[in-house]
Amino acid sequence: MTSAASPAYRRLSVEERRGQLLEAALGLFAHRAPEDVSLDDVAEAAGVSRPLVYRYFPGGKQQLYEAALRSSADALNRCFHEPAEGPPTERLGRVLDRYLAFVDGHDAGFSALLRGGSVVETSRTTAIVDEVRREAAGQILHHLGAERPGPRLAMLVRTWIAAVEAASLLWLDEEKRLPAAELRDWLVDHLVGVLVVSAAGDPETAGTVRGLLARERPDGPVADLARRLLPLADEAARLL
Amino acid sequence: MTSAASPAYRRLSVEERRGQLLEAALGLFAHRAPEDVSLDDVAEAAGVSRPLVYRYFPGGKQQLYEAALRSSADALNRCFHEPAEGPPTERLGRVLDRYLAFVDGHDAGFSALLRGGSVVETSRTTAIVDEVRREAAGQILHHLGAERPGPRLAMLVRTWIAAVEAASLLWLDEEKRLPAAELRDWLVDHLVGVLVVSAAGDPETAGTVRGLLARERPDGPVADLARRLLPLADEAARLL
Repeated sequence: MTSAASPAYRRLSVEERRGQLLEAALGLFAHRAPEDVSLDDVAEAAGVSRPLVYRYFPGGKQQLYEAALRSSADALNRCFHEPAEGPPTERLGRVLDRYLAFVDGHDAGFSALLRGGSVVETSRTTAIVDEVRREAAGQILHHLGAERPGPRLAMLVRTWIAAVEAASLLWLDEEKRLPAAELRDWLVDHLVGVLVVSAAGDPETAGTVRGLLARERPDGPVADLARRLLPLADEAARLL
Repeated sequence: MTSAASPAYRRLSVEERRGQLLEAALGLFAHRAPEDVSLDDVAEAAGVSRPLVYRYFPGGKQQLYEAALRSSADALNRCFHEPAEGPPTERLGRVLDRYLAFVDGHDAGFSALLRGGSVVETSRTTAIVDEVRREAAGQILHHLGAERPGPRLAMLVRTWIAAVEAASLLWLDEEKRLPAAELRDWLVDHLVGVLVVSAAGDPETAGTVRGLLARERPDGPVADLARRLLPLADEAARLL
């Protein structure tokens, strides 16, 4: 690879070179399953030789994958941070917009990672994925005002996160045909629905829902959902 | 292993012997992570020699694991079958009772399988897990009267299944402290909640919910949930 001997090639510091290789790996792992990315692909994308990649990442593809995953996990964790201001469903909507943009930008890599069974999957990679889930749960509980949730509320949030992951995978499978904004709104409604039914059986969740309702706007997503549900509520009332 | 030479040992047919080894493997893989099960353990549990295990399962632990997983997947698929009679939430409750009994009886193995990152995990094992998810989704859609669901209803059912898996893992993590019947009721309410909020934005789901309401009983889970939600509905009404 002649570019490997160019003057530009020599000028990069160790950290810059490492960053450049990681960037190339990230770009490849985002849109392909790890099985479909070779060290030669990374070298080619970075415009360097294969031995040079090995010099920076002696663990080869596995090490590059884990470094790329670590970097993606950090980016995803940053998506979850949202100021605790305004109606909670609107905050959640903004977080979901950033999350879905991330999923969109890492489609094949995201699918391969969450589907499992990949050759690069290890207890280290699953620990990173779990850390992201815990971070997401912590942020949601923070906005719900429940930093130390009881078992029901903790389970509710973790199961909703699992539902978001499953919905994201289906969205990718269906070539993102559903507009991201519709998926976002449905996921917000989904959390509201589960919070409400759980409130019926758990005093802590009922208190959380009361706190949420107090912070929602008459023209916000919860009021809109309630308005759209009125006809069904009438039908359900026949059961009572 | 002296028992390997006993007369009883010789009397088993090829199929019986294979079944006996699989049974021993199933018992071990149910309550331990695959990493913590050796071929020697299987041989010891079956009361045979290690070479005999290899004769029936030349692929060793991987082959035994996949055979045990196949057998467990078939058992789980059978759990999902329920006559299409009576209120749908009561049918779902019975399916969940059987599912949670299965989870309870396969605790460590179930956790290890769904958490991923295990050495025995391959594209074959993830394909088996996905097949079980598809079977579960098909059965639920059958009971919802939506064999050919639109994208929203299909997504709803798949995300609820993901939520059930996540809830099951948390239940196991917390040493099954929550009574299984409470978890079952919460999961039923969870599906009802998501169906209802989705009905607000999707005519197909609204039709499905109307069909469900018509088949529920005044003393059944949906009516009970609606009754418990009345106080919150009053508070939400203030938003309108």
